[in-house]
Amino acid sequence: MSLLVTGTIGIDTIDTPHGSARDVLGGSAVYFSFAASLLAPVRLVGAVGKDFPAEFRRLFAGRPIDLTGLETRTGSKTFRWHGKYLADMNERQTIRTDLNIVGETPPEIPKAFRDSKYVFLANTHPAVQKSFVEQLAAPKLIVCDTMDLWINDFRSDLLKTLAVVHGVVLNDSEARLLTGQRDLILAGKAVLALGPAFVVIKKGEHGAMLVTPENVVALPAYPTQKVVDPTGAGDSFAGGMMGYLAAVWRSDPTALRAGMVRGACAAAIAIEDFSLKALAAADESMLADRLNQFRSMLSFD
Amino acid sequence: MSLLVTGTIGIDTIDTPHGSARDVLGGSAVYFSFAASLLAPVRLVGAVGKDFPAEFRRLFAGRPIDLTGLETRTGSKTFRWHGKYLADMNERQTIRTDLNIVGETPPEIPKAFRDSKYVFLANTHPAVQKSFVEQLAAPKLIVCDTMDLWINDFRSDLLKTLAVVHGVVLNDSEARLLTGQRDLILAGKAVLALGPAFVVIKKGEHGAMLVTPENVVALPAYPTQKVVDPTGAGDSFAGGMMGYLAAVWRSDPTALRAGMVRGACAAAIAIEDFSLKALAAADESMLADRLNQFRSMLSFD
Repeated sequence: MSLLVTGTIGIDTIDTPHGSARDVLGGSAVYFSFAASLLAPVRLVGAVGKDFPAEFRRLFAGRPIDLTGLETRTGSKTFRWHGKYLADMNERQTIRTDLNIVGETPPEIPKAFRDSKYVFLANTHPAVQKSFVEQLAAPKLIVCDTMDLWINDFRSDLLKTLAVVHGVVLNDSEARLLTGQRDLILAGKAVLALGPAFVVIKKGEHGAMLVTPENVVALPAYPTQKVVDPTGAGDSFAGGMMGYLAAVWRSDPTALRAGMVRGACAAAIAIEDFSLKALAAADESMLADRLNQFRSMLSFD
Repeated sequence: MSLLVTGTIGIDTIDTPHGSARDVLGGSAVYFSFAASLLAPVRLVGAVGKDFPAEFRRLFAGRPIDLTGLETRTGSKTFRWHGKYLADMNERQTIRTDLNIVGETPPEIPKAFRDSKYVFLANTHPAVQKSFVEQLAAPKLIVCDTMDLWINDFRSDLLKTLAVVHGVVLNDSEARLLTGQRDLILAGKAVLALGPAFVVIKKGEHGAMLVTPENVVALPAYPTQKVVDPTGAGDSFAGGMMGYLAAVWRSDPTALRAGMVRGACAAAIAIEDFSLKALAAADESMLADRLNQFRSMLSFD
């Protein structure tokens, strides 16, 4: 079942206490696509400038990622982000953001993609997210992400977007900021009151929580010691989750939980190397191995 | 298989944003005993003063908790603690601690209890914990708890205790303080280097982590909205875990994981009312219900 993602495609520079990576492939829609493509074919919608390196484009080859919706604007520059992780890898600073093409007119969803059933709106301006929703013919499941900037400064736009999506994936700090509730279950319930049928709250190393009107599910993160570059962990999580849902053509709470587990495994792979290196080297069997590990960790008499 | 616990038996006063409880039953060994007794008979070792109310003693009736080791000193006063939870229930302040009998000569393990196989040394001075270990004839599994006071000011005593126990249960902040490692897996490994064969790191609302030389297991907390009084959650967790291990007569990593799940369920019960009220009203079938809920939450295709 067709899975579409909209979001940023970027050129990142990443500093960690253990090393750096300069001008590497990044962006929310890219991490999402690589993770989701381990489970289902992906349609990518985004825009890059003429500076987007040909070798980045080649990294997508061999993956079931349809680049029909990847617009290249010769008069524009690609989105750039420079981040720095502090000693414990759990805190990061943004050194510099060059919005470039992300500050211009957003790309359109190609006609051939408008029948997409499963849709993930990665983090961007909520009005742009809503305009994507309006281009879809008959979506079955639309899930969005967001961030503190939109919660703080574009709340009324964000509320309109939340009113038209089926689900939200966001960080614990964002859920608290959006709702004013410190307790994450109460925060989740307050997000549901804004429209969505479910919310997935990402807690980083502490896992993720699913809140629906009927139920609350808490899952741990896949425990890993090998954290090289946490960039894209959240988008990889969303990719694993949505890839699974698109593959099984379901979005009930039981499927969401199974999707979250795939997301946790995809995120654990993503952070093991800089940029997209680890995800690009992963295949279905590696994801299946992680899944088996995760399943046996959570099985007990 | 015989399960023994040593620790405090106290009179607590607890303030929360939603209500208060004055002069109620508390103490690490008490929470542990009530939780563990849902799974196995418990031998309690501790001391109280002449001020220990008779109605507190009656709360133990009907539970498989052997009070042979409950020493009453007529010339002493019972340990008292007054704590206050802040608005979000995740932070607490100690308003007042009266060590009283806990500052005197520790109780002895009664002769009839010295053959105990499963032993939990709840939080107290590490030298006292070690003296308990030396009174045991042929223990199979000794697990201890500790706290920041001993880590900071009595480290050499604590290291001697860690060298003679099989396992440790402690909070994330304590694991970091003890080892200087921020990352919890690295902190766990560093604790293992001090002697224990396993360490369980409690993360409150984020669950718990088991670190052994071969493996790392992360489990979520039992998600609950009904948090009335978090006092004793960690001791109830330890009680559920040790009660299970004593019941199945095992302490391998698979059993530890199953025990941690019982601990999570017992802790979720404990915090639903003030003091021991919720645990005292619980029975085996309530724990089994939670366990089934937890198991289905962690089961997925």
